[in-house]
Amino acid sequence: MFKVIGERINTSRKKVQEAVANRNAEYIIKDVHQQVEAGADYIDVNAGARIGHETEDMKWLIDTIQPNVSLPLCLDSPDPAVLEMAFQMVEKSPMINSISLEKERYDAMMPFLEGKKCEVIALCMDDKGMPSSADDILARAVSLVEKLGKIGFLPESIYIDPLVQPISTDSNKGVMVLDAARAIKNRYPSVHITGGLSNISYGLPQRRIINRTFVALMMDAGMDSAIIDPLDKKIMATLRTADMLLGQDQFFMNYLKGVRSGTIES
Amino acid sequence: MFKVIGERINTSRKKVQEAVANRNAEYIIKDVHQQVEAGADYIDVNAGARIGHETEDMKWLIDTIQPNVSLPLCLDSPDPAVLEMAFQMVEKSPMINSISLEKERYDAMMPFLEGKKCEVIALCMDDKGMPSSADDILARAVSLVEKLGKIGFLPESIYIDPLVQPISTDSNKGVMVLDAARAIKNRYPSVHITGGLSNISYGLPQRRIINRTFVALMMDAGMDSAIIDPLDKKIMATLRTADMLLGQDQFFMNYLKGVRSGTIES
Repeated sequence: MFKVIGERINTSRKKVQEAVANRNAEYIIKDVHQQVEAGADYIDVNAGARIGHETEDMKWLIDTIQPNVSLPLCLDSPDPAVLEMAFQMVEKSPMINSISLEKERYDAMMPFLEGKKCEVIALCMDDKGMPSSADDILARAVSLVEKLGKIGFLPESIYIDPLVQPISTDSNKGVMVLDAARAIKNRYPSVHITGGLSNISYGLPQRRIINRTFVALMMDAGMDSAIIDPLDKKIMATLRTADMLLGQDQFFMNYLKGVRSGTIES
Repeated sequence: MFKVIGERINTSRKKVQEAVANRNAEYIIKDVHQQVEAGADYIDVNAGARIGHETEDMKWLIDTIQPNVSLPLCLDSPDPAVLEMAFQMVEKSPMINSISLEKERYDAMMPFLEGKKCEVIALCMDDKGMPSSADDILARAVSLVEKLGKIGFLPESIYIDPLVQPISTDSNKGVMVLDAARAIKNRYPSVHITGGLSNISYGLPQRRIINRTFVALMMDAGMDSAIIDPLDKKIMATLRTADMLLGQDQFFMNYLKGVRSGTIES
């Protein structure tokens, strides 16, 4: 079944930043409850936008969110010190967002991850930048899975982000990432494929229909998780529908629940 | 590029039947013009519903439609005598809808098709009924392509309909037909995959979101044509978007045209 990583608790979003600055717990709790009701499986927590305040903001966010939600958190920071602090606070085994092959991030994250019991998002990014072909994405994914394997991460704990890129710059970028997802799943059937989707439509009009059509295609190619806004009813409706069509929704439970709750409309 | 076979001119639709019975040419011409504007590539013409009138109704429909449209027609009848009459009337090489492996239809259609310059829809149906697995669909498609090949049909003139079946009776039916489409395209890259889509959602609520999510998945699996209502804006929007995402819409021409005309909305 598809896993939704709810992306809303991020201080780069203006209202969340205000709520965090004002220690407005009510706003944060309400937002998290809405994500839960909408079907989130993880709550991503990113406190990076208020420069110089990340540690205290992350601590306050976890203190605020954790007692109010039974879902695991997705701890979202490039700073291993912040992640270490957050990791010690959480009661449920979290997801870590993220490691990559960029030397600085990789060297910082590997010592933090070693020996940790958690899941991890691994970006197919290195110091040469974004990947340029499906083979390139696969090679980076293999490198990440192998390196993480050596420090104890089983394939089923790893969420590869193949990095969706805009088709507006190269109309082949959609097919490229679809092919890469298939190749990764073919090589590592237990590894998960995740990521954001909205880059695909950058520079084009009516972006949301592009994003939600693309997620259905990515799911068929093996994507089984995404970092999205669970309050986007249309993308959630497409997710639930594609999951059902791909035989991943036993007895159509999630689909029918979505219809009853009004999330899924024709 | 995806080909839309506009399904609206069918006397099983009540308003079309009335228009045909009353020889209301204006109604038919208007409907066909709407289909053309909406992006149809073929106009399907089915005059089968008024028992005893099929020949004269088909003749009248072709006489009415042909001067008003530059698209090829898709002549839709199980009766080779009706098709022969229609075939002699049309100026553009038509599509024939359809042959199958059911003995009665097969024996009637093969002599009609032999030596004809046209395209043909070939249904994966035989006297045992609907296919029961992806391998079964593939075997039937192979049989159809080989038999049609022997009477002169090139792969690129053949549109295989793998017969979409309801997931409500068996949640695996979506994956089955997706796998079958991939296997057919793998074996015969030039053969087209077509069909109706709405059976997939039979028995479930909010059917249209299921149908349009499914068409995106089918397109990724190789479907490059469908028999649909081109006036269904949401399915057309999904089609154009998936075509673009799959790299089949050069310079995003159709997508951007759809946005400008208001067909494609987020």
